[in-house]
Amino acid sequence: MAEKTTLAVDALGGDDAPAVVLEGTAEALKEDPDLAIVLCGPREVVEPFAASHERCTAQVTTEEIAMGEHPANAVRTKKDSSIVVGCRLVKEGQAQGFFSAGSTGACLAAATLVMGRAKGVARPTLLTVLPSPVAPVVMCDVGANADCKPEYLVQFAQMASVYAREVVGIAEPKVGLLNIGSEEAKGSAFAQECHKLLSARVPEFAGNCEGGDILEARFDVVVTDGFTGNVCLKTIEGTASVLFKAVKGALVSSPVAKLGALAVKGGLTELKGRLSAETYGGAPLLGVKGACIIGHGSSSPTAVKNGIHTTAKIARGRVPELIAQAVVR
Amino acid sequence: MAEKTTLAVDALGGDDAPAVVLEGTAEALKEDPDLAIVLCGPREVVEPFAASHERCTAQVTTEEIAMGEHPANAVRTKKDSSIVVGCRLVKEGQAQGFFSAGSTGACLAAATLVMGRAKGVARPTLLTVLPSPVAPVVMCDVGANADCKPEYLVQFAQMASVYAREVVGIAEPKVGLLNIGSEEAKGSAFAQECHKLLSARVPEFAGNCEGGDILEARFDVVVTDGFTGNVCLKTIEGTASVLFKAVKGALVSSPVAKLGALAVKGGLTELKGRLSAETYGGAPLLGVKGACIIGHGSSSPTAVKNGIHTTAKIARGRVPELIAQAVVR
Repeated sequence: MAEKTTLAVDALGGDDAPAVVLEGTAEALKEDPDLAIVLCGPREVVEPFAASHERCTAQVTTEEIAMGEHPANAVRTKKDSSIVVGCRLVKEGQAQGFFSAGSTGACLAAATLVMGRAKGVARPTLLTVLPSPVAPVVMCDVGANADCKPEYLVQFAQMASVYAREVVGIAEPKVGLLNIGSEEAKGSAFAQECHKLLSARVPEFAGNCEGGDILEARFDVVVTDGFTGNVCLKTIEGTASVLFKAVKGALVSSPVAKLGALAVKGGLTELKGRLSAETYGGAPLLGVKGACIIGHGSSSPTAVKNGIHTTAKIARGRVPELIAQAVVR
Repeated sequence: MAEKTTLAVDALGGDDAPAVVLEGTAEALKEDPDLAIVLCGPREVVEPFAASHERCTAQVTTEEIAMGEHPANAVRTKKDSSIVVGCRLVKEGQAQGFFSAGSTGACLAAATLVMGRAKGVARPTLLTVLPSPVAPVVMCDVGANADCKPEYLVQFAQMASVYAREVVGIAEPKVGLLNIGSEEAKGSAFAQECHKLLSARVPEFAGNCEGGDILEARFDVVVTDGFTGNVCLKTIEGTASVLFKAVKGALVSSPVAKLGALAVKGGLTELKGRLSAETYGGAPLLGVKGACIIGHGSSSPTAVKNGIHTTAKIARGRVPELIAQAVVR
């Protein structure tokens, strides 16, 4: 029998918590017989759920970190919140990973402060896998570090390459630096310095990646500072959302088109599904001592389920340990 | 009779120059009887065209700036290139504006060095009008200044607000700062400082704009540094291109869908046309002494035509003068 993988799950995270989280957790448990969950949250939520689901235990917590709170302050003062307790379970070895769809800032702060940074990691990084129709694209940092030093991007490249190989299954990831031209000398002073360091220290580095190259999957991994990465990620999501709405509008613009729209609806729905961020269930935080995925606040049950599956995959692949080796090589 | 507006046009700019430029120029002259063009380029190109078109004069130039050349060096050494000569015609008052689909860097350098910066302008800025299906959105800087000081963004906001009012026709433009959260304290140290300055000095400033807000047209004007703006613009274009391809793929995925696709084709083509960057014909450079639009290297004749029309609109609206007033107010 395979060894069980135990994950801590934040029952309170997300706009429609706890209902959405419970539904996703139940699905994940059903699909993965080697998975065990420690569900963190208020007694009235976690105890009945644990009682009625195999391989689930309840971890009662008494505090809650709301979306608007100052992350570091909240983590320091609310020691019995579901986010802090979930991270502590990982720190203490009672769980191998943590999933939450709660406040990104609070999860970042708790994972960094409570689980702790992996040795040699200057800044943990938030990563996303873009579901491009061409091929999946790993991008980081997407918001953990608004202000970066060029050295951080070297580590982001090292950490994201491990993730691309071990979790996304890209055998030889090509790393690109997000920049405003393909030539070496292009870009801000910061980007030029990053280019130099990446060339010297990251064998996977393959050059500059322009905005238009991202979804074309010209690179498997795109590294950037957390400000540009976050703007870029939200721009991609926003552009896709506006365009899908416009396509839908164009499809019902005339009676003939309306008839045609019925015929193409299946294909479009399938495409929208493939392009959905739900596939990966959230953004992994790399560079901390444990598997950690932060789901979108508006996560659906499917997104929660997939987020839990991916957290388990990170834990089973010993990705945090491989990352710690990669940054000191 | 209305007064003629004279524009200098670079016959050599663009991937398919001079053919595409000549076709667009001929169309523009036909559509606008108050327009006169000074066509800059090699004798064998500009003289036959000028001879066969009303209101067009030839300005023979003997040098050419290629796409890969170092912009500032090329502008300094190739004084008789079509780009430098076109800008000099504006400087000398023989033309009110300049249009080129040539090297963006060379056009930026020539316009700044030869026409000169408007008094009080720290850095001229490259602007774009995003053809969002919701409403047009003005964004700047999109690549002229990879490294910015927060003070520059104050001027970008002032200049772009004038452009939004006078050229795009938005009576009361709302300005947003591209950032990674809606709250005031969000973002990089740079973004936070920009937020402070914009709040204090730009009455049109309405808060932070996230990546997902851009195409939703939550703001009429989006200001950012030229690195983030360029990445963002190319990301929007790339996302739209990849998605349209994927939608097309989905539409022919089954025989029934194929039939439906025929019926919806008209609507989609119309939508793609509306979302095309061709509509505005290029990126205006604001903060120099004269109207100046830099077209895309891959401009079509329609894009060249529209770029010339917009350059004329900028000149007629005395936008460069209004901008000079706005930055010193």
